[in-house]
Amino acid sequence: MNKSRLEAFSDGVLAIIITIMVLELRVPEGHQLSDLLADWPKFLAYVISFIYIGIYWNNHHHLLATVKRINGSVMWANLFLLFWLSLLPWLTAWVGESHFAAVPMSVYAFDLLLCGAAFSLLEQAIIRADRRNSLLAEAVEGSTREKLSLAGYVTALIAPLLGVLGVYLSGLLIVAIALMWVVPDRRIERVLARANAQTNE
Amino acid sequence: MNKSRLEAFSDGVLAIIITIMVLELRVPEGHQLSDLLADWPKFLAYVISFIYIGIYWNNHHHLLATVKRINGSVMWANLFLLFWLSLLPWLTAWVGESHFAAVPMSVYAFDLLLCGAAFSLLEQAIIRADRRNSLLAEAVEGSTREKLSLAGYVTALIAPLLGVLGVYLSGLLIVAIALMWVVPDRRIERVLARANAQTNE
Amino acid sequence: MNKSRLEAFSDGVLAIIITIMVLELRVPEGHQLSDLLADWPKFLAYVISFIYIGIYWNNHHHLLATVKRINGSVMWANLFLLFWLSLLPWLTAWVGESHFAAVPMSVYAFDLLLCGAAFSLLEQAIIRADRRNSLLAEAVEGSTREKLSLAGYVTALIAPLLGVLGVYLSGLLIVAIALMWVVPDRRIERVLARANAQTNE
Amino acid sequence: MNKSRLEAFSDGVLAIIITIMVLELRVPEGHQLSDLLADWPKFLAYVISFIYIGIYWNNHHHLLATVKRINGSVMWANLFLLFWLSLLPWLTAWVGESHFAAVPMSVYAFDLLLCGAAFSLLEQAIIRADRRNSLLAEAVEGSTREKLSLAGYVTALIAPLLGVLGVYLSGLLIVAIALMWVVPDRRIERVLARANAQTNE
Repeated sequence: MNKSRLEAFSDGVLAIIITIMVLELRVPEGHQLSDLLADWPKFLAYVISFIYIGIYWNNHHHLLATVKRINGSVMWANLFLLFWLSLLPWLTAWVGESHFAAVPMSVYAFDLLLCGAAFSLLEQAIIRADRRNSLLAEAVEGSTREKLSLAGYVTALIAPLLGVLGVYLSGLLIVAIALMWVVPDRRIERVLARANAQTNE
Repeated sequence: MNKSRLEAFSDGVLAIIITIMVLELRVPEGHQLSDLLADWPKFLAYVISFIYIGIYWNNHHHLLATVKRINGSVMWANLFLLFWLSLLPWLTAWVGESHFAAVPMSVYAFDLLLCGAAFSLLEQAIIRADRRNSLLAEAVEGSTREKLSLAGYVTALIAPLLGVLGVYLSGLLIVAIALMWVVPDRRIERVLARANAQTNE
Repeated sequence: MNKSRLEAFSDGVLAIIITIMVLELRVPEGHQLSDLLADWPKFLAYVISFIYIGIYWNNHHHLLATVKRINGSVMWANLFLLFWLSLLPWLTAWVGESHFAAVPMSVYAFDLLLCGAAFSLLEQAIIRADRRNSLLAEAVEGSTREKLSLAGYVTALIAPLLGVLGVYLSGLLIVAIALMWVVPDRRIERVLARANAQTNE
Repeated sequence: MNKSRLEAFSDGVLAIIITIMVLELRVPEGHQLSDLLADWPKFLAYVISFIYIGIYWNNHHHLLATVKRINGSVMWANLFLLFWLSLLPWLTAWVGESHFAAVPMSVYAFDLLLCGAAFSLLEQAIIRADRRNSLLAEAVEGSTREKLSLAGYVTALIAPLLGVLGVYLSGLLIVAIALMWVVPDRRIERVLARANAQTNE
């Protein structure tokens, strides 16, 4: 099975997800700056989701750089990830329109949690698909960043239901986790570099 | 004629179909969990259609892996398949909004039947386009799974019109056929493997 | 300048145009077959436009197969073609919603005329960009089919304004021109085959 | 890191941005030519934005032709550019629906200013990512056209707020800057040609 069509399909889906979100930014009713600024929650939600999709595209890119062989499980694990990412435009619009109400925030964090879990499943499926390629297994083993993110998402999903302060905490956590992932997985880069060095010796 | 642009165009269309369906999931009116859950039929229909498009992408991918030469008939058979698949987002929204009413279910099954028939036509067009390549002809000859699917779709299209129980039967059949196709065509993989083995002897 | 990104961008735009048209097929209000069938003009317009985009994709594909070098003029001629094609989803919805009223039919034919003219301009820009490659110049010189199409579009654009019979004539012409182009440009295939034969002598 | 997936993702996003703008051209209410012509401001805004996206695609294409190595900064600078470009469909609809009111014009010019600034940042990130490749550094150093554009955008952003004449000036400047960029960066082409000549000596 050919990894290039998997990459092309995933790039296509991620490009569409990141772009159609703008269709949920309705045109302001009036023609004043205040009409534009009144929509700031939708705009802020758009920015956060744009950054998340960018991060997933970047890490997906890194992850597949280590892959030589794929199989049906990898294909379905990849679709499972794309499914949860595909819900982001819809939930972004809900969060924005509700001006960051508790339940939409919680559901948004729940979707991010499932995206994160699906990414871990995809890593596992890739490792199982090609046991001879131990690079990725070595690189992702015991990732602190992944564990921190999952714990952060769970907190961000529960907190909004506990009161107004919880909504702020949830927003802060979602932004903090994004910042944590802006730099892609250096472990993968290190392991790839070491493998190259060994080949050249 | 070049098969890579056919693959790129098909990947693009399938990536867009699978993603724009989310635009039909309207943002819930209220901000409570009950407002979200009230839309469960639209969400369930979205999940089923997402899986179907994923299956078609996967099998399309397998089918074209066996191809060396294409011609105008293959191009039009491919567009015919993409046409029926392109109607899925629209019919998914109708099925969901109607809360699985009889006629929308029946029309949805009818569209799936035409997608299945178009896929068979595409297989035939590919076999005719390159008679020297007998791999695919051998692989798809007398496919039990294809015949079962077509019979299942016809039943799923008639049943809803016969009463409420028929709607449930139709839904079960549509899910069952999807499960049957989650594993892509092993016949193609077996025949490709055998061909590789012969080359290496 | 690199022709592969021009192909990739054009494939992307054509894949999106052909797919987003389905967003203009609104979900039927009721749940009966009659509610679905009431929208037949929108569906018929969708089918025609789908076929036209398919034809343009196919012929664009053939046209670029002859190309080795592109330049800025080719890039802008290509964007000019994509511009007029990008209006088809919007005009398709207007034609369908108006149940084939005179002015929408006429404007639709006008857009097809501009698509056809833009395709001819693109052919000329490609010939000028690479004078050493005389294959295409030979192939498209004095194309009867192109001249017939342009005359047909002009008639299809004027006829609806002259009465109800003119609307039917316009519809027939639009379908007839599409049928005329279902088979892509054999002149290009012939000239390419001859060039290959000369190389092999 | 692989530049081809960056190109593929950017082509995808730009193809979607340029195409979904047509979804904001609502179908005219009536069936007369006057109903169509009443929407001329939306159509004119669509044309201008279509040309701008075309220019960015073309220049992005040129810019990446000089690149051998990319890194995380290039990836984020590229996403930053795509972010501001992704807002164009939304602001195009606002400008058109408002019939070129002062604030929408000013916000549209502000977005173009940020697109231009993001493009310059992307150039700088690419130069820093690959210091051995001095081609681009040489080509973009002290670009008069970039400085003129940024000054033009700032004027086009302030002018509409000063009165009706300012709106016309802003529109003229936006069209004039587009015309200035229709020809892609010849400096890059000259420097690439010189580099090729030196290699061949």
